Amino acid sequence: MSPSSVPVPVADRDLVIITAALNGVLPDRSHCAHIPYSPEEIAREAKRAAQAGAAMVHIHGREPDGSPCWRPEVFQDIARRIRQVSDVIINFSTGGIGLPAAERCRHIGAARPDVAALNMGSMNYAIYSPRKKRFYHDHVFQNPFADIITFLRVMKDHGVRPELECFDTGHIRNAVPLLDMGLLRPPLDFSLVLGVLGGAHPTVKTLLHMSEILPAESHWQVIGIGKLQWRLVAAALAMGGNIRVGLEDNFYLPDGSMAHGNAPLVEKAVALALDLGRQPASASQAREILGISPVPAHGSPC
Amino acid sequence: MSPSSVPVPVADRDLVIITAALNGVLPDRSHCAHIPYSPEEIAREAKRAAQAGAAMVHIHGREPDGSPCWRPEVFQDIARRIRQVSDVIINFSTGGIGLPAAERCRHIGAARPDVAALNMGSMNYAIYSPRKKRFYHDHVFQNPFADIITFLRVMKDHGVRPELECFDTGHIRNAVPLLDMGLLRPPLDFSLVLGVLGGAHPTVKTLLHMSEILPAESHWQVIGIGKLQWRLVAAALAMGGNIRVGLEDNFYLPDGSMAHGNAPLVEKAVALALDLGRQPASASQAREILGISPVPAHGSPC
Amino acid sequence: MSPSSVPVPVADRDLVIITAALNGVLPDRSHCAHIPYSPEEIAREAKRAAQAGAAMVHIHGREPDGSPCWRPEVFQDIARRIRQVSDVIINFSTGGIGLPAAERCRHIGAARPDVAALNMGSMNYAIYSPRKKRFYHDHVFQNPFADIITFLRVMKDHGVRPELECFDTGHIRNAVPLLDMGLLRPPLDFSLVLGVLGGAHPTVKTLLHMSEILPAESHWQVIGIGKLQWRLVAAALAMGGNIRVGLEDNFYLPDGSMAHGNAPLVEKAVALALDLGRQPASASQAREILGISPVPAHGSPC
Amino acid sequence: MSPSSVPVPVADRDLVIITAALNGVLPDRSHCAHIPYSPEEIAREAKRAAQAGAAMVHIHGREPDGSPCWRPEVFQDIARRIRQVSDVIINFSTGGIGLPAAERCRHIGAARPDVAALNMGSMNYAIYSPRKKRFYHDHVFQNPFADIITFLRVMKDHGVRPELECFDTGHIRNAVPLLDMGLLRPPLDFSLVLGVLGGAHPTVKTLLHMSEILPAESHWQVIGIGKLQWRLVAAALAMGGNIRVGLEDNFYLPDGSMAHGNAPLVEKAVALALDLGRQPASASQAREILGISPVPAHGSPC
Repeated sequence: MSPSSVPVPVADRDLVIITAALNGVLPDRSHCAHIPYSPEEIAREAKRAAQAGAAMVHIHGREPDGSPCWRPEVFQDIARRIRQVSDVIINFSTGGIGLPAAERCRHIGAARPDVAALNMGSMNYAIYSPRKKRFYHDHVFQNPFADIITFLRVMKDHGVRPELECFDTGHIRNAVPLLDMGLLRPPLDFSLVLGVLGGAHPTVKTLLHMSEILPAESHWQVIGIGKLQWRLVAAALAMGGNIRVGLEDNFYLPDGSMAHGNAPLVEKAVALALDLGRQPASASQAREILGISPVPAHGSPC
Repeated sequence: MSPSSVPVPVADRDLVIITAALNGVLPDRSHCAHIPYSPEEIAREAKRAAQAGAAMVHIHGREPDGSPCWRPEVFQDIARRIRQVSDVIINFSTGGIGLPAAERCRHIGAARPDVAALNMGSMNYAIYSPRKKRFYHDHVFQNPFADIITFLRVMKDHGVRPELECFDTGHIRNAVPLLDMGLLRPPLDFSLVLGVLGGAHPTVKTLLHMSEILPAESHWQVIGIGKLQWRLVAAALAMGGNIRVGLEDNFYLPDGSMAHGNAPLVEKAVALALDLGRQPASASQAREILGISPVPAHGSPC
Repeated sequence: MSPSSVPVPVADRDLVIITAALNGVLPDRSHCAHIPYSPEEIAREAKRAAQAGAAMVHIHGREPDGSPCWRPEVFQDIARRIRQVSDVIINFSTGGIGLPAAERCRHIGAARPDVAALNMGSMNYAIYSPRKKRFYHDHVFQNPFADIITFLRVMKDHGVRPELECFDTGHIRNAVPLLDMGLLRPPLDFSLVLGVLGGAHPTVKTLLHMSEILPAESHWQVIGIGKLQWRLVAAALAMGGNIRVGLEDNFYLPDGSMAHGNAPLVEKAVALALDLGRQPASASQAREILGISPVPAHGSPC
Repeated sequence: MSPSSVPVPVADRDLVIITAALNGVLPDRSHCAHIPYSPEEIAREAKRAAQAGAAMVHIHGREPDGSPCWRPEVFQDIARRIRQVSDVIINFSTGGIGLPAAERCRHIGAARPDVAALNMGSMNYAIYSPRKKRFYHDHVFQNPFADIITFLRVMKDHGVRPELECFDTGHIRNAVPLLDMGLLRPPLDFSLVLGVLGGAHPTVKTLLHMSEILPAESHWQVIGIGKLQWRLVAAALAMGGNIRVGLEDNFYLPDGSMAHGNAPLVEKAVALALDLGRQPASASQAREILGISPVPAHGSPC
């Protein structure tokens, strides 16, 4: 026997912040033709993603040939173009391999995004092929505290909010000494990244565990890498968390077809959110929730 | 930084068994006009639910005025009508208040459903109104071991598979002595019922916990009561579990509109399953997974 | 490789409140000769338990022949005798089978203990013999909301603090409407009772889960029934929870010998607490932590 | 109300394997005068630890001045001396900073311990002083898959059993591709290392989570670093896991006094195990449980 209508109080955390990770740095157009490289392409994708329901866009710099770009003027151009067309929250990457931290944060001061992503610890970062029984890729993703501190100081100086990317449980705990040093101030924004070989398992169990060991009052979103992304997105929605989708993390819609850009991925995320009783936050609602200033008046002249 | 395409092995538990709980016993047509009462109405709803993607239908007997019905001939009529039009798995309730167990299992022997639901323990069963600051409903839902054993003996005698309805963690553990007595044999089928006041919390955390303390090799589905149902359905899909929807548990589609029958609820469940990379099992696939005999030849003469 | 002395901040919840459940109601002297029945015996055991390190004593009334006693004057006598010799916190049971709630709370008003235990829900309460493949005992432990409310009103009227005994996860959630009605006020004191067949599993996993779904700022202790008690006590100590030992729950010391009274059980609990870096709270520290008034001046005339 | 003697089936995993980590590599005699350096000192400590109840000893090579030693002849001397006096399981470290993997495994082939420890992933490895608000130590502990594979091949060639040291959840998952490649074969032996800044939190919650995501049939022990060690030891005992103590991990007895060697730490671990109903496994029982060959006849000539 089961009852029909026991009144269960709906959690009041109904607004969900959807982020679109527009391009990443590893995938290129041989993998997916829709990955934006140029500031113009990136701004166009940002606008479409925002129109589809994304409140934040996470962006990597790309050279015209798709290789990683760290030139401040490129990021300035990206920020300017996006702000002309949207009040979406702008989030720039700071991650990279083989480049000193100092060079990976010049664009933060120059382009002053609303948010900058920050890798909160080290781990192996690998790709294994079960078919070929060998590793395609195997490196140590190095983010010692010295680098993390460098980034946090720059962000603090320029009023940029850090988004703490955690690939395993220890990365979450790494926030504790940084809070103690005053380099971080609550409430914090965490990204729980699941599915990278070397880091946390892409399961509901691990996502729940990680979400439960965050400092009190933290915000969090799930970043699910690869095919299991949609399951993790649904689980995060059910738990009251925020979500990230986009071509950086996964090219494919749930039906297995490659998405023609970021907007279709955001649209699917919005549909799932609504089906689970969550309401996508607008950019201005997300700014209020996260404590990010509204877009400056001169930022949207059009 | 996040990678684009780390190969994560997709769990091979991709098939999901969807059950439609067609009518229940508490809700009536003043709550929802689409609740089937008569065998004819029930069979029609069963067929529609099966066509929409349900592999199993869970059914309560109803008198013409909607009150609970335990008459064996009514259940025989229901089973006969459904088997004429569908190979969907037939699951009859045995739960009820204020009626001795012996009277609540006569229909099992008479109508021989494929499956019969069995409440695995006792608890308070209440409805509270936060607005009026008082309880609408408050009784002790009594299912002592003596009753459970009565039901299990009848089911065993008639080759009916028990579906173990667990409203809290202790109900799961109650299976241990029954396994030890030989009244249950693995693999077991559990329903984890969340959202009844008196029983387990309707949260992802509780669902995960309950799914993790089942005996090895068990099957399980979530039964989410009320508004949070869709979140629990999504979470169960993400965890690899099976799901139940239907007018017994929740009248409403995610957009807040009342469903015009069980089929639209099943259709939404199917859509969510596909979005999370799960494939709805056909009735015959579900029979194979659960170890339930195929429909007897004489069962589908049309 | 492992380091030798990474500075891990020790949790500041180092004080542990140890409760001794002196006599219970089910066990009698044929089971254990040391179970106190008379007020004099109970007061003597209370004093010894307090001297051994217990900050609270949980007590059931007993007739001279050991059968359950609900006579208010007996409880008055118990309270008076204990208060003459100790400032230990006095906690009286309200649980019982087959007696109306109204009769199980008269002693609360009459004897005004510091704390009264309160069963927070219903469940099966059974004992199964794996050897004989049958149940020794099987009844529905009935604690509907109506009864809970009756007890809470009496406790509120007499300034007695409720200790919420939860045998499963739903019992914890049952506090929500009672908080909403103003019958409970945070912070709450929970007892998590593990090991009764019908209720929660006696495992670290279940204990952790239950401790994590309590309302914020709650106090909690573990009550482990039977042989696995010491494991649950150790786990609770490691988690920062409080603990209960005593002849009501388990007669045996870890080495398998029957304890000669409650004090040896408390001594072992104290030793375990110290080994895990926890400090037993004195009765007055426990009163402060739980918000219980100090012993009234007239209460300790000696 | 609580019952006195509900029969709870005691888990049959009652034997606990206790490992003593005799010396480590970071701590020296300025920290603790009892740390053994020379083969003679190490063998004496191994014998004492074994007599106190350790079934395994984990050992780092040390030069006469206490600095790290990787000379194969030193490890050969250590193994020979220990085997002359005890059948304790010998476990050698392979971890180290700033030395290529190839140089950190020569002693494995030369001295053929029963077991060799293997770090299963990378992470930050840091020490932070809350008082001085700065990091004392901050490096990336690098263990890419290439190194892990190097070690596993050497161990496989010489019949040495790997002990998989996991400092976070991703390290556990790293076993999956290695199992797939045939470099690991179940059942596996895991060490769950908690309390290093950069890795997993030293809490019961994290320990439980890590123990639950191991491959099926795995053995595991907890390695708790620093002051919270005894809590984690107790929690692991309560969960059915194995435990490690010793001067490498923590110098202090629960009462805060520095241990005069490894044996007193093992004695305390034995006492805790017995209090929780666990029985310390002898070396030969531990060999059987873990599938390690008995000591060769020529190994114990005395």
